[in-house]
Amino acid sequence: MDGETAFRRKYGEYVSIINNALDDCVPTDDKPGSEICNAMKYSLAAGGKRLRPVLALAVCDMLRGSRNDVLPYACAIEMIHTYSLIHDDLPAMDNDDYRRGMPSNHRVFGEAMAILAGDALLNRAYEVMVSHIMRKEEDLSAYVRAMHVIAAGAGVEGMIRGQTLDISYQGLGLSEETLEYMHRCKTGALIRAAVLAGACIGRASEAEYKALDQYAENIGLAFQIKDDIMDVEGSLDRMGKMTGKDAASGKNTYVSVYGLEKAAQLLDRSVSAAVEALECFGEEAGFLRDLALFIRDRDN
Amino acid sequence: MDGETAFRRKYGEYVSIINNALDDCVPTDDKPGSEICNAMKYSLAAGGKRLRPVLALAVCDMLRGSRNDVLPYACAIEMIHTYSLIHDDLPAMDNDDYRRGMPSNHRVFGEAMAILAGDALLNRAYEVMVSHIMRKEEDLSAYVRAMHVIAAGAGVEGMIRGQTLDISYQGLGLSEETLEYMHRCKTGALIRAAVLAGACIGRASEAEYKALDQYAENIGLAFQIKDDIMDVEGSLDRMGKMTGKDAASGKNTYVSVYGLEKAAQLLDRSVSAAVEALECFGEEAGFLRDLALFIRDRDN
Repeated sequence: MDGETAFRRKYGEYVSIINNALDDCVPTDDKPGSEICNAMKYSLAAGGKRLRPVLALAVCDMLRGSRNDVLPYACAIEMIHTYSLIHDDLPAMDNDDYRRGMPSNHRVFGEAMAILAGDALLNRAYEVMVSHIMRKEEDLSAYVRAMHVIAAGAGVEGMIRGQTLDISYQGLGLSEETLEYMHRCKTGALIRAAVLAGACIGRASEAEYKALDQYAENIGLAFQIKDDIMDVEGSLDRMGKMTGKDAASGKNTYVSVYGLEKAAQLLDRSVSAAVEALECFGEEAGFLRDLALFIRDRDN
Repeated sequence: MDGETAFRRKYGEYVSIINNALDDCVPTDDKPGSEICNAMKYSLAAGGKRLRPVLALAVCDMLRGSRNDVLPYACAIEMIHTYSLIHDDLPAMDNDDYRRGMPSNHRVFGEAMAILAGDALLNRAYEVMVSHIMRKEEDLSAYVRAMHVIAAGAGVEGMIRGQTLDISYQGLGLSEETLEYMHRCKTGALIRAAVLAGACIGRASEAEYKALDQYAENIGLAFQIKDDIMDVEGSLDRMGKMTGKDAASGKNTYVSVYGLEKAAQLLDRSVSAAVEALECFGEEAGFLRDLALFIRDRDN
């Protein structure tokens, strides 16, 4: 089995663990109003790469932390990611009818229910984390700290700030500095939260925590740049000129600000920096290293 | 100073403490995208009765718990209440242009920003609670428990379930049982969470906790019935017949299901039950007793 096959197999294992756990995160019942649970489950089951929860699990694994203890935080992050997609797709936001090839939440359940389903997923993320802490009898501080990095990453100085910038600057140009701030918040903050939550639960030392923070920062950046590049290249392939959705809508991307060539260089540079940050973990960091390369080389 | 004046003075004191603390809950900064903070602050400062945080403070006070320790939870509950109002007012939900006499959030900041401001307030509620716990060095379990009751009350088995029912049954009749379930979730769950969070931080004994739960259940019910009655009476006064907004929109209320007279009886009964539940606290429960009567007799 070559390296890439081993990586993909491991990734797939993580994804099944996560999918099973996510399914348990949203209860179904036969009380009136249970349609909200269906709306939540619809988007949560719609899949995607599960990058954030995979990161949390992989980091905790590397540090030989408990799988059962990191899972609630991994699921919470994916629920937060999913709620943000549901709200992003709303007519008042990006107005997307499809998400991952399926009708978006509000197309299936209506706008009112989609707003509530997003709210409910965000709240549920915290319910799942707090319930996990409630069951613990040992020192609670590592768990509280993991929840703290997630709350900060999801909030007004993290993901939500990024979404605000995305909306505020739509159709307007922005500086390289503001672009980086926007993406550090919008995509980076939750990716970073996933890595750091894994680090908290895995009881990382201070030096390990810092190294993982460096890693997270760089793969977050790489992830966003790659997204922007794929969006343009996909459009170039199909149309022979740049007509990507983001370009058409006046969205600010790494490609629109830096151009394709410079964006590709930035991508390479951040992947290298991510891999470098893992040095102190030696062989144990194999999966996280491969994950950084996967982010660079993926085609969706 | 008569009893009512003393009550109103005390209530006013609580409200100023809460307003000051709420103002500190949402940071302002000069980074790009800080308009989201303005949108959050706009609705948070719009006021209202602050019933939920007052309850949390008053319960904790009665139990001689720490004021500083209960404040973050009281503020969190008010932030959750405020986010739910912002989202409720959206065109896809109740489509209200005004809230407490002021233009609703989306009328001032636009729909996209209002969706994000609601999300941000919900997330911020948890940030504030978790940050408070992070600063603690003693046993954390009471704080985690307080956050747990709030998360449960705000979630898919609490407030959000109630909002779902409100939307799902709009224009349809519902049974008395489902009506009560809807309101127990929609208004009751967060009022109950406020009382129980105060009980957790005040280190209530098991018997005290149960008594406060009874109290909370009954004032939650009373609050909603009174709201429904005022809505109809306000309309009767003005128009001579029932043309209240809720009646016009096909909303299910205690008055539409039970009629005015029976609703008034139910109101009296739940206020008496609330007062009874406080017996074990004797004189110490004076403010909470007055609060139950205030809920019955208020005119807004």
